[in-house]
Amino acid sequence: MSAPIAHGGGITAAAAAFGGRPDDWLDLSTGINPCPVALPDIPARAWHRLPDRHLVDEARRAARDHYGSGEILPLPVPGTQSVIQLLPRLIEDDRIAVTDNKVAVTDKRIAVVSPTYGEYARAFASAGFAVDAVDDLAAIGSEHRLTVVVNPNNPDGRVWPTDTLIAAHDRMKAAGGLLVVDEAFGDTDPALSLASCAPQLSNLIIFRSFGKFFGLAGLRLGFAIAQDDILERFEDWLGPWAVSGPALSIAGSLLRSDVSPIRGRIDGRNAGLHAVLKGAGLQISGGTALFTLVADARAGDIYTHLCRHHILVRKFDYAPDWLRFGLTPDPAADRRLGEALQRFER
Amino acid sequence: MSAPIAHGGGITAAAAAFGGRPDDWLDLSTGINPCPVALPDIPARAWHRLPDRHLVDEARRAARDHYGSGEILPLPVPGTQSVIQLLPRLIEDDRIAVTDNKVAVTDKRIAVVSPTYGEYARAFASAGFAVDAVDDLAAIGSEHRLTVVVNPNNPDGRVWPTDTLIAAHDRMKAAGGLLVVDEAFGDTDPALSLASCAPQLSNLIIFRSFGKFFGLAGLRLGFAIAQDDILERFEDWLGPWAVSGPALSIAGSLLRSDVSPIRGRIDGRNAGLHAVLKGAGLQISGGTALFTLVADARAGDIYTHLCRHHILVRKFDYAPDWLRFGLTPDPAADRRLGEALQRFER
Repeated sequence: MSAPIAHGGGITAAAAAFGGRPDDWLDLSTGINPCPVALPDIPARAWHRLPDRHLVDEARRAARDHYGSGEILPLPVPGTQSVIQLLPRLIEDDRIAVTDNKVAVTDKRIAVVSPTYGEYARAFASAGFAVDAVDDLAAIGSEHRLTVVVNPNNPDGRVWPTDTLIAAHDRMKAAGGLLVVDEAFGDTDPALSLASCAPQLSNLIIFRSFGKFFGLAGLRLGFAIAQDDILERFEDWLGPWAVSGPALSIAGSLLRSDVSPIRGRIDGRNAGLHAVLKGAGLQISGGTALFTLVADARAGDIYTHLCRHHILVRKFDYAPDWLRFGLTPDPAADRRLGEALQRFER
Repeated sequence: MSAPIAHGGGITAAAAAFGGRPDDWLDLSTGINPCPVALPDIPARAWHRLPDRHLVDEARRAARDHYGSGEILPLPVPGTQSVIQLLPRLIEDDRIAVTDNKVAVTDKRIAVVSPTYGEYARAFASAGFAVDAVDDLAAIGSEHRLTVVVNPNNPDGRVWPTDTLIAAHDRMKAAGGLLVVDEAFGDTDPALSLASCAPQLSNLIIFRSFGKFFGLAGLRLGFAIAQDDILERFEDWLGPWAVSGPALSIAGSLLRSDVSPIRGRIDGRNAGLHAVLKGAGLQISGGTALFTLVADARAGDIYTHLCRHHILVRKFDYAPDWLRFGLTPDPAADRRLGEALQRFER
């Protein structure tokens, strides 16, 4: 398999290189809500027992109502990473007969609207697929057995209108292919979601992330929304009890709670971050409510400078001018970031 | 893939068939310690952040010291089920060059010492392998690319001496094959474990279960012990952040704790269960400290009778004379089981 991708969250490695205790670092390298929601009560049996069917079913019903997926009960998965890794197997599984006028596509080729989250290309390349990094949905063709689009996109926040995505789905379906829409950062703007259209789109797979919005990334929980034949295959391949009992229990509670205060707090933190970045003269070139992308010719130097102040942000090998800033947890952290940026000598 | 296997823990389905609230059932269908260990403190960041490297490393060191695997740092996995499903891929991966005098084995054939836990045969059959259910390690041959043995075995408690297992490993290795020893129920009798030999046995893979012994099966945590090249492949295929932060944090704490009181309590519960079963005139034919196997020509009727009393035990399609009883949580539950068994009309 290709080399691991450097993701956010690598505070241990950063502290080893630049000093300081990992806990004292300000980690802005992820897109996780820095103000975790209070944990609901977790019944003792969720820890004790193998996750029983009723726990799974309740989480699925709560996810259906929360995401608005109509008759589809989203499948809980141990982080969307777990199903990203199953996608190559899915399209090699000849039980997937996805269209009425199916075209025999023998080429192992897929498309990823890029730049974006790197694990899709890694998973497919590792399974022997040619991966076309396309810059627009208009570039996908009948040679692609699957297309991935992240909406809103990570790291630039690019947004795809529902009509454009449905048209892309229909093109993929006409050639017997699948469209994967990763809505990992979709919770702060639910109007973008294709979830309500999913029951009518047979060749669509939506991935949702639970941990980013709720600030509980350690849980390892995501949901897949697709037709039953696809979800059943994922469930089969993941095997029994793929998701932990506490994760299912927490999801069942939080997905039924009023999330507008969470959105409000995220928006407040986002405003704080934007003020700091603008105050430091940085140019905001994109992002979502949970992270902000900065374009700056001296991004590499700013990255290193911030590391010296024990602040970790994301840099990108493929775009050396970019830095991605996650939200700070509170105004004090905004000030800490602002002061560190002020000391950067331009 | 073949049809799902009926495992323990299906209280929801049992209650739907026989009535009662699932929470009011006495679940003796699993091999999980019914007296869960008190949860250690879980730091907020274990819930909040993506599981960082230091959390993984600390769990691995604690597992190494607990299991006694010497220079091998056991790999945490989200339940051993997750790596069982990777075994077919492992032996199809040509990067595994497992022996100096490797024999070219082209047949897709493996052996499972049987009867035993059903998910091994299911995973390999699903991947197109022929699965020989052998009744003894003496029956494995050079045609088998991998052999699975569960020690102590589930459900009969059969135990394999270390010397026999090492000899089996050496035979497998001579033909370029792998030996998998599943020690899911090994915690109550650590002297049985091959873990301390693992650094010297290049073609050995050991699986350990965390949740059964500690009574925390909802966590979804296990460990794989093998040479680095195998563990690195598992880690790569599972992808980043496969195990939840709370699970890693709890493992880091509990694997460093004194577990002798846990063993003592399990032994006490086991003695209580044995007294009840013997008092009911049932014949104990095997088991481990965490479950007991009963052989009885009327096993099917006893199973149904107990279901009517809202007590769930395990039955086996392949051995209609067998019933497996998990431990009861307390003497009151022993009495409840005993009274239900007394009402069974022989």
